[in-house]
Amino acid sequence: MASKLIHFSFNPRLSPLHRRSIKHSSSSYRPINISMFDGKAYWASINEEIEAHLEQALPIRDPLTMHEPLHNLVMSAPRTMAPALLVAACDLAGGQRTHSIAAASALHLMHAASFTHEHMPNVLGKPGEAQKPGPAAYPANIELLSGDAILPLGYELMVQSVNDVSDRALGVIVEMSRAMGAQGMVEGQYMHVTWYKDPMDEGPVDGWVRKVSEKKEGGLYACGAACGAILGGASEDEVERLRRYGFYIGMVYGMLYGVGRDEKRGGFSKLEAAKRFRSLALLELDGVKVGKVGPISSLLDVCCSFEEKEEENTCFVMS
Amino acid sequence: MASKLIHFSFNPRLSPLHRRSIKHSSSSYRPINISMFDGKAYWASINEEIEAHLEQALPIRDPLTMHEPLHNLVMSAPRTMAPALLVAACDLAGGQRTHSIAAASALHLMHAASFTHEHMPNVLGKPGEAQKPGPAAYPANIELLSGDAILPLGYELMVQSVNDVSDRALGVIVEMSRAMGAQGMVEGQYMHVTWYKDPMDEGPVDGWVRKVSEKKEGGLYACGAACGAILGGASEDEVERLRRYGFYIGMVYGMLYGVGRDEKRGGFSKLEAAKRFRSLALLELDGVKVGKVGPISSLLDVCCSFEEKEEENTCFVMS
Repeated sequence: MASKLIHFSFNPRLSPLHRRSIKHSSSSYRPINISMFDGKAYWASINEEIEAHLEQALPIRDPLTMHEPLHNLVMSAPRTMAPALLVAACDLAGGQRTHSIAAASALHLMHAASFTHEHMPNVLGKPGEAQKPGPAAYPANIELLSGDAILPLGYELMVQSVNDVSDRALGVIVEMSRAMGAQGMVEGQYMHVTWYKDPMDEGPVDGWVRKVSEKKEGGLYACGAACGAILGGASEDEVERLRRYGFYIGMVYGMLYGVGRDEKRGGFSKLEAAKRFRSLALLELDGVKVGKVGPISSLLDVCCSFEEKEEENTCFVMS
Repeated sequence: MASKLIHFSFNPRLSPLHRRSIKHSSSSYRPINISMFDGKAYWASINEEIEAHLEQALPIRDPLTMHEPLHNLVMSAPRTMAPALLVAACDLAGGQRTHSIAAASALHLMHAASFTHEHMPNVLGKPGEAQKPGPAAYPANIELLSGDAILPLGYELMVQSVNDVSDRALGVIVEMSRAMGAQGMVEGQYMHVTWYKDPMDEGPVDGWVRKVSEKKEGGLYACGAACGAILGGASEDEVERLRRYGFYIGMVYGMLYGVGRDEKRGGFSKLEAAKRFRSLALLELDGVKVGKVGPISSLLDVCCSFEEKEEENTCFVMS
C-alpha cells in the first residue's frame, strides 16, 4: 500500500518533475531538533499578520447588503495553513514579508471564494445527503455573487503589494490560477460531486479520497509553498522541492481533516497514509540548500496533532 | 435629462479623473471621415484572431464531462466588442498583437465566467419571472464549477503571453479584477437582482438602467480600452482618456442591448441616451495624441446599428 501512496500525479502541466516517481525511503518519521526555536510562536505570528492584513483589506463599505456578506464569508471561511506555509517558504528563500503576507492573504481569499461556492445551498449537494452550509450562511444568490467578487479581489490584493517584483508576481498568479482552476481545486470539487453521484464510477474508496485530496488540499498547500519560494527568489529546483513539500503537507491535512475525514468505507487507514506523507514531506526538506529549514519543517509538529487522531481511531477503518 | 446622463461615477477607486463632471458639449454626432480605411474588415479581423486564440487555449481534454461544458460555456457565451476594443486601444498606443490578443481572450473568458453564473438555473432569477438560461444550459452544479474554472483560466492565459512586459501585465490584472469584482460586474449583477426583489428601492427606472449599465457594460468596455492602452504603453493621461471612451461605448451598448433593453417603464428614451453617450465617446478621442484614432473611432459606426434601433422603437418609451 505504501508504494501506491507515494506515486502521485497532480497538475501534470506544472513541471515534468511532478511526474517523477519518488523512491520509497525506509526512513521513518524523525522529529527535527530545533534548539531555541519556538515553532508555535512562529506560526501563530504569521497567522496574526495574515489576519490583520485581511481585516484591513476588507473594509465593510456601501452597499452594506453586498459588502457585509462578502466580508463575513471571507472571515468565516475555515483557515488552512497554506497561506502561512507561503510566508514560511518565502522566509526560507530570503524574501520579504511585505510581499508574502499580501500573497498569503490572497491565497486565503481564493480558498474562501471556493469554499463559499462549495457550500452554497442546494447546488453542490450529494444526492440523499443534506448539504452542510458554510459557517456564514446566506441565500444562494448572495453566496454566488460574493464568491465571484472574492476571487478577483484576491488577485487585486496581491498585485498591489508586489509591484517591485513583477516577474515573480506573474509567476505567483499563474500558480494560484492553476491551483484554483480546472486542473486543481475545481477538478477536486468536480470529482467530489460527480463520483458521489455515480457510485459505480468510484473505484476503491482509498483511491477516491486520495485523488480528491491531491487536487484540493495537496494542490492548495503545494501552491502555497511554491508561491512563497517564487516570491522569495528561490531557484527553480528549490521551488519544485518546496512545492513537493507543500503537496505532502496538504496530503497529511487531506487525510486527517479533509474530504475523507468522515469516509469510513474500504480497508484504508488514513492515519497510516498521513504518517507516510509526513515522512515524504520531511525527506524533501533534506535537499533544501537555500536556508535553514527549521521553521518551515516545524509545521506538522506544531499544527497537526497525530496523537489526537490516534485516539479518535473510530474515524478510521484500520487496515 | 442630458445633464443627468453625463454625470456619472463608476468605480471611484480607479482614478480621481473618473469623478470629474464632464461639461456638456453642444457638439452633435459627426461621423469621422476615414479615407481608405475599411472599419468592417478591421474589427472582423480582430475578432477572428481572438476566436482562434480562444479555440487554441481551450482544448477539450479529459475528464470530458468537465472540460466539454467548460469549453462550450466559454464558446457559447455571447460576444461583446470589449475584447476587440482592447486590441484596438493597444494598436492605437503602438503595442503588440501578441500581447493584446491574449489579454482580449482573457477578457472574454472573464465575461463568460460571469455570464455563466448569471444564467445558472434558479440562482439569480427574479421573483415571478422564469430565468432565461444561457445558450449552453447545464445543471447548476456544472455551471457553478465551470464558471469557477473559467475565471482563473483567464488570468493564466493572459500572464503566459505577456511575460516580457510584466509591469504592464500587472496593471492589466488589476484593471480586470476591479472590472469583474465587487465594485464592477458583481455590483451590477447585485443591483440587478436585489433591486428587482424590492421594487420600492428601485427609484426612477432610468436611474436603475443607467446604474446597472455603468457597472456592467460601461465597466467592461472601460476595462477593455484601458487594458489595451496600458499594454500598448500609453501615458496615464491617454489611458484615462481611452478608459472614458470605452466607458461611453459600453453605455451605448448598455442602452441599446444591455440590461435595459426590455425595460419599458418610465419616461426614458434609451435611444436618445445612447446617442448622447456616442457623442461623449467621440469627444474623448478628440484629445488623443498617441496615434491615429480612425480605426478605434469606427467601432460604433461598424458594430452598432442606430438606424435599426430607430425602427424598433417599440422597444423604447420615447420621452
